[in-house]
Amino acid sequence: MTQAAPELNPPPRILMGPGPSDTHPRVLEALAKGTVGHLDPFYLRTMDELQRMLRGLFRTENRMTFAVSATGSAGMEAAVVNLIEPGDSMVVCVNGVFGGRMVDVAGRAGARVTKVERPWGEVFTPDDLRPALEAAKPKVVGIVLAETSTGAWQPIEEISRLVHDAGAMLVVDAVTGLGGVPVEVDAWNIDAIYSGTQKCLSCPPGLAPISFNQRALDTILNRKTKVQSWYLDVSMLANYWGQERVYHHTAPINMTYALYEALRLIHEEGLEQCFARHMLNHRALKAGLSALGIEYATQEGHQLPMLNAVKIPPGVDDAKVRSTLLNRFGIEIGAGLGAFKGKVWRIGLMGYGSRQANVLLVLAALEQLLAEQGHAFTRGASVAAANGVYASS
Amino acid sequence: MTQAAPELNPPPRILMGPGPSDTHPRVLEALAKGTVGHLDPFYLRTMDELQRMLRGLFRTENRMTFAVSATGSAGMEAAVVNLIEPGDSMVVCVNGVFGGRMVDVAGRAGARVTKVERPWGEVFTPDDLRPALEAAKPKVVGIVLAETSTGAWQPIEEISRLVHDAGAMLVVDAVTGLGGVPVEVDAWNIDAIYSGTQKCLSCPPGLAPISFNQRALDTILNRKTKVQSWYLDVSMLANYWGQERVYHHTAPINMTYALYEALRLIHEEGLEQCFARHMLNHRALKAGLSALGIEYATQEGHQLPMLNAVKIPPGVDDAKVRSTLLNRFGIEIGAGLGAFKGKVWRIGLMGYGSRQANVLLVLAALEQLLAEQGHAFTRGASVAAANGVYASS
Repeated sequence: MTQAAPELNPPPRILMGPGPSDTHPRVLEALAKGTVGHLDPFYLRTMDELQRMLRGLFRTENRMTFAVSATGSAGMEAAVVNLIEPGDSMVVCVNGVFGGRMVDVAGRAGARVTKVERPWGEVFTPDDLRPALEAAKPKVVGIVLAETSTGAWQPIEEISRLVHDAGAMLVVDAVTGLGGVPVEVDAWNIDAIYSGTQKCLSCPPGLAPISFNQRALDTILNRKTKVQSWYLDVSMLANYWGQERVYHHTAPINMTYALYEALRLIHEEGLEQCFARHMLNHRALKAGLSALGIEYATQEGHQLPMLNAVKIPPGVDDAKVRSTLLNRFGIEIGAGLGAFKGKVWRIGLMGYGSRQANVLLVLAALEQLLAEQGHAFTRGASVAAANGVYASS
Repeated sequence: MTQAAPELNPPPRILMGPGPSDTHPRVLEALAKGTVGHLDPFYLRTMDELQRMLRGLFRTENRMTFAVSATGSAGMEAAVVNLIEPGDSMVVCVNGVFGGRMVDVAGRAGARVTKVERPWGEVFTPDDLRPALEAAKPKVVGIVLAETSTGAWQPIEEISRLVHDAGAMLVVDAVTGLGGVPVEVDAWNIDAIYSGTQKCLSCPPGLAPISFNQRALDTILNRKTKVQSWYLDVSMLANYWGQERVYHHTAPINMTYALYEALRLIHEEGLEQCFARHMLNHRALKAGLSALGIEYATQEGHQLPMLNAVKIPPGVDDAKVRSTLLNRFGIEIGAGLGAFKGKVWRIGLMGYGSRQANVLLVLAALEQLLAEQGHAFTRGASVAAANGVYASS
């Protein structure tokens, strides 16, 4: 006989890593509301409102804007497998883990993949892509707006023009970007874009907001082969998220409640205010880290406000700082991934987590721990620098 | 500017359809606990305990027993796409919607699919499969333990022997079965099995419990081609759910809390007691429905306790009864799907929803509505019949 496990008592955490970020208390409350059926009239209205709010956040009129019933990586897979048929050419921009993941996903979908690479922490210019577009003549180009592994903030608009001039469609990874920086799906002419709930939406992981424009949708509806994934087949999902409401799979009701509430929070605050808050807290954190002698690992001018990838100072014990932050203060920051492993910390200021209290606390805590490790800096300067940014804002 | 939607106020519902079923209040509470990181030591311990409790429920020692980060249909896709490589032969048993879905999923994975069919509402005998096994020499055979569209309860043990004698592996769909009827993964020699959280686990939809035995895992690790889905690739998921804890995708933290609590509830009650409760409430419902002149659409002797597919009496307005049940009593029952559309109701008694109060209420409510529609039956006999079953239990 199997014994029941102990009661579930998660320790209080302040999530300042690469995501999941802190869930807003109102979102936690929404999660716990009573489950209804996936064809309940109330639920269908909830989906409508959710889609409307999601279109507002993506700044798009795209009819096919909805939430994939899985996490952000499934959003990536949904975008790729719906647009790619075996043998199609796809160019993927790789400057971190998530571009690399898209190469893998595209290859599994049968794409002939051309990688364009930039060093970790840097972004792409149109010139970086031009040769690959000419050589590969891709059907689809994939690029990451906010590279969670490096903190790089990729400008999209010019690259989108170039991609469309080359006759290709543009897929954008906005997992970490959405809700923290402007994402202009229609103005930038993005054909398919996906995100995740657990970054700047103050919501637990579990859903992948996604949007396809008409060009992408037409491409999907005119495929010669079936989409390789039944679960992610947009031509079928369109019948559930569209007016027909044809049953496809059982929607994750309570996670939908959470995303609904998260979107309410963002629109109550206002998008511009929300982006400005992310930027202000980033500037304060950056000023404070600088006073601690900590530099960014990301190209200047392209540093994401919600994901601060910074170099671990020489002589400082990476694992010890992170575990002490967690155990003494309940603060989670992220380790480096891949090429940045052991060299970089990733400090997230995402959604509800992007607030003054978190900035000041993490700086004060880092000051304590770095002093314990003999790292040299002017005591008190860090919090003072952050407060200086807030004072002049 | 996008306006925030109205406050989220789900109407109280009693979910007696084909799922989602009523979420247990303790599971709703667990959902709302504070999010932690997906590599937090607490979360890793939670995963360990969840896996242990899931093995207990599946009655298996399979190391690779975990939860797919998506709903039950993604569990089906995970089982199929990991075991099938393009060109492999697969036999699928189809006696309802979900067998049909497996055919579609297998075809998209590149399988040469052989369908074996039985009429809706019936189950398969080993004799039904024998010719297909001889002709198709399949690598994998797929079958549904609990066909949610028809209420048919498929015996597995003998068929499993036959499948293995033919050198194939057996994949079992236990989406609706798990937690409501015995599922003996090791004793029945099932190679891969999947379920969903929203049926007999008293948990919202969003995760797919799944288990692969060593034979299945070896097959996956020795594939010639990559699994077509990155998100569902078990060889990568094994490194996150195994001892290595290598990051793959960001786990749906709060849904994991919900499943953890749901599994605690089942093991606190005890599996045998839980199955006996499902059976008793089914017998009471069946006695009550019989007194209303309502017959089962499923083969006698193979009726699932948690999903009662019954024939709509002649002259009764299907849609009106269902919408009045919902609007007057807050009770959701399910419509027929596919071949059963307009002909069958599906009354779920799943997990927390399988309780005396629900049985008596739905019978009393149906008595009121059927009387309004002029259907003839002995007043009061239905509830009395159900209470008779409880009295003699």
